[in-house]
Amino acid sequence: MRGPLTLSEIAAQLGGRVVGDADRKVVQVGSLGRASEKQVVFIAQRRYLGDLARTRAGAVILSPDFEAQTTLPRIVTDDPYLYFARLARLLNPIPTREPGVDSAAHVHPSASLAASARVEAGATVGANARIGERVWLGAGSYVGADAQLGDDCRLYPTAVVYDGCIIGERAVLHAGAVVGADGFGYAKDGERWNAIPQIGRVVLGNDVDVGANTTIDRGTIDDTVIEDGVKLDDQIHIAHNVRIGANTAIAACAGIAGSAVIGRNCEIGGAAMIRGHIRIADGTRISPATAITRSLRAGTYTGIFPFDKHAAWLSNAAVVRQLAKLIDRVRVLEKKRLQKESNSD
Amino acid sequence: MRGPLTLSEIAAQLGGRVVGDADRKVVQVGSLGRASEKQVVFIAQRRYLGDLARTRAGAVILSPDFEAQTTLPRIVTDDPYLYFARLARLLNPIPTREPGVDSAAHVHPSASLAASARVEAGATVGANARIGERVWLGAGSYVGADAQLGDDCRLYPTAVVYDGCIIGERAVLHAGAVVGADGFGYAKDGERWNAIPQIGRVVLGNDVDVGANTTIDRGTIDDTVIEDGVKLDDQIHIAHNVRIGANTAIAACAGIAGSAVIGRNCEIGGAAMIRGHIRIADGTRISPATAITRSLRAGTYTGIFPFDKHAAWLSNAAVVRQLAKLIDRVRVLEKKRLQKESNSD
Amino acid sequence: MRGPLTLSEIAAQLGGRVVGDADRKVVQVGSLGRASEKQVVFIAQRRYLGDLARTRAGAVILSPDFEAQTTLPRIVTDDPYLYFARLARLLNPIPTREPGVDSAAHVHPSASLAASARVEAGATVGANARIGERVWLGAGSYVGADAQLGDDCRLYPTAVVYDGCIIGERAVLHAGAVVGADGFGYAKDGERWNAIPQIGRVVLGNDVDVGANTTIDRGTIDDTVIEDGVKLDDQIHIAHNVRIGANTAIAACAGIAGSAVIGRNCEIGGAAMIRGHIRIADGTRISPATAITRSLRAGTYTGIFPFDKHAAWLSNAAVVRQLAKLIDRVRVLEKKRLQKESNSD
Repeated sequence: MRGPLTLSEIAAQLGGRVVGDADRKVVQVGSLGRASEKQVVFIAQRRYLGDLARTRAGAVILSPDFEAQTTLPRIVTDDPYLYFARLARLLNPIPTREPGVDSAAHVHPSASLAASARVEAGATVGANARIGERVWLGAGSYVGADAQLGDDCRLYPTAVVYDGCIIGERAVLHAGAVVGADGFGYAKDGERWNAIPQIGRVVLGNDVDVGANTTIDRGTIDDTVIEDGVKLDDQIHIAHNVRIGANTAIAACAGIAGSAVIGRNCEIGGAAMIRGHIRIADGTRISPATAITRSLRAGTYTGIFPFDKHAAWLSNAAVVRQLAKLIDRVRVLEKKRLQKESNSD
Repeated sequence: MRGPLTLSEIAAQLGGRVVGDADRKVVQVGSLGRASEKQVVFIAQRRYLGDLARTRAGAVILSPDFEAQTTLPRIVTDDPYLYFARLARLLNPIPTREPGVDSAAHVHPSASLAASARVEAGATVGANARIGERVWLGAGSYVGADAQLGDDCRLYPTAVVYDGCIIGERAVLHAGAVVGADGFGYAKDGERWNAIPQIGRVVLGNDVDVGANTTIDRGTIDDTVIEDGVKLDDQIHIAHNVRIGANTAIAACAGIAGSAVIGRNCEIGGAAMIRGHIRIADGTRISPATAITRSLRAGTYTGIFPFDKHAAWLSNAAVVRQLAKLIDRVRVLEKKRLQKESNSD
Repeated sequence: MRGPLTLSEIAAQLGGRVVGDADRKVVQVGSLGRASEKQVVFIAQRRYLGDLARTRAGAVILSPDFEAQTTLPRIVTDDPYLYFARLARLLNPIPTREPGVDSAAHVHPSASLAASARVEAGATVGANARIGERVWLGAGSYVGADAQLGDDCRLYPTAVVYDGCIIGERAVLHAGAVVGADGFGYAKDGERWNAIPQIGRVVLGNDVDVGANTTIDRGTIDDTVIEDGVKLDDQIHIAHNVRIGANTAIAACAGIAGSAVIGRNCEIGGAAMIRGHIRIADGTRISPATAITRSLRAGTYTGIFPFDKHAAWLSNAAVVRQLAKLIDRVRVLEKKRLQKESNSD
């Protein structure tokens, strides 16, 4: 944490217009409900105005719309949430690690390691791997042979990158993330499954975040590709030969089946499932818990079975299994109605 | 395993009323179908009475209802399942580990470690971490800087606790569990996502179990909180700033989105998904594979699309996309019927 | 990679009939779209004939049906996909590892380790564990006390096998796989949950593959059993006392609840969920994202709520909650229609 900073010092770095005491000092960001006077909060939605009235924060980031809603020292900006993100980073910079290889790390002599990289105890770097400047390899993390990590990557403890995978700059791999395990590919051989060697790689662009216990499988022949700026939450599964376009964000527990192509700037909700071999257009939004079974043009798509009290669900679900018959029965009624009306003429 | 114990020795420790040979010795618990005469079994449901008749077990735990259904030596108790749980623990106590730090463990000199704790080879304890009495840190497990573990916690191999997280007494973290990875929080910056530093912690109460590969993310500003006695199965995802009330149990593969508040004594089925920012009342039960999209009062809720043979599903699912039109068509028929009846007057 | 091999050398080993230049040399398998002339591709589906016409590959594996569709050197076989799988393995044999125990590995003195096994830095082998010939234990992997691994098993970095679990020959456990964590079993004790010791094991047959971050829990009393040739993708959860029959394949993110019995030769789609205590017949196919709530005879089963544009979904989903009433309304209309027709006689 860099603070304390005055509001005028903050505005000098991040822009915005200070209203009220420009010398107010803050040391940390806070939440409306729990902030102390040394913390700065933000408000971006009208429904939190009541919380704003009650906050004990020392300063507020807000839009011109809400500027008159508080007497606290404040910074006015068109996008308070983005401003808050930048300010939070300013007050909480990514920690710099002392360069060097811990004596209990396992680095293959043929690996190429930037002098500014930090390798913690129990971390492994395989043969001919290339590790960029200021990379941090946490305890027990693993970088396989021939893999490459760009500058400023961070691998949290137990994160694993398999042999030959390529990771751009500033990637963050959280604990338990696995990049490059074998794709699930088998040919039937009588009753048995004959494994197809998965010789493709995983290639991650720059600024990709991979959440805890998320898995990205290597391609069968060609690569699995995650483009720049993709953000993956925890426990996501990306199958072999998937391609995900730049700046797409995917929430936790989602699964993308093999060879699916996801466009740029998509937003995919938690626990959504995408079938293999389909294409999702740029800018598509998929709701949580939705199974997508065919290719999509841009738009927002949802497929959640509406929950209900258990007894009501039982009654309604029983009808789901009769829907095709039900619509036929309505057709019969309509047809008879038309005959009747025709007869009445 | 402590056995052998006689039924009277067991009843002396755990209560219950012995019927038949009180000197019958047992060494282990067993299942009705496979137990030998040195094993003790239980029966709690009528549908297993046939299995009881055939069992080769040496003794049985059962309720007064079933007392006359066997001639085996038996212990009669009102809650045979709970009795069995206690007896199984009596015969299978949690192993005690020899205190000490393995020479291949990595403990920061500033960490505070109880003398009775055990740290296995390849485990890491960060700066200023505090580790309680009798804690077991399995091979390759990780406790970050400033984290705290209460007495009698057990971290299985590769379990990870990030910096600053607080864990109460008697917690069990299975392999691959990740406590404290960054929450999934970003602000849009043009087309790019700007990460919001996640500076909150995860705080676990006492007696919390965390299954293998379950992830609990740290809060954005305030903490993610798991209260006493919460039991989490494998592969669950708990997002940032979630709060889970005491003694709530969640089955595998469930996901709880950010800032959801789950009450006490809830039971959430496997693969259930809870939307963010909603409140689930104390004592609520949610069925497996159910997506909950709004706040709930106590009750049992379900939302599973009923499966069917594939061809039948195809027919019925096609009608789902026409349901709004279908109900309109039924309304038209009803309206015409009413006009007709009115005309007939 | 063993290549280059000529087509006649390949056919000598794997069968098939060479058409065209039998001396064409290939060094690697490739994809139709990206192969160079040193790569061999396959085609098994008519829809890729256009890609075949454009490929720059050096040779093709295909069925007699497509034999005349290219002038490239080719190998004709009845099952091109299976042939391709075998050829890919021939060109990409499983790497052999130099036998030995890394000085930074942690092997208990009482463990029994084949001389041909390889144990990497940071891997752990517990007391009395038995490790077969040519087993590879990757960096940071873990084999608990009394566990057994058959010949030719491979544990990727961070894979974990708990105490006492039994694994057959040629198993592959990818990174983050956890075999043998405690099943989720508790008895209610007032408001609290009383853990039931999970004393069963996990027993894996031969030729079982376990994907990255997949979890297989140990049995409560009896064992959790995975038979020969079962293939498990990433992030699958198998609960305690499940039994999975030989050669069943399960795609990523699926979950199988406790004591379910899955037959042989089943195929279970990604994110499918199987309820506990049910039986799935041999040869059953379950579609992705389908929740199975009762026992099944052989067949193909599906239960996906059909997604739609969000607005359409909102309209249709609202009717789902009225289905039981809707079918009653249709019954009333039908009854009145019948009365009317009866009156008209």
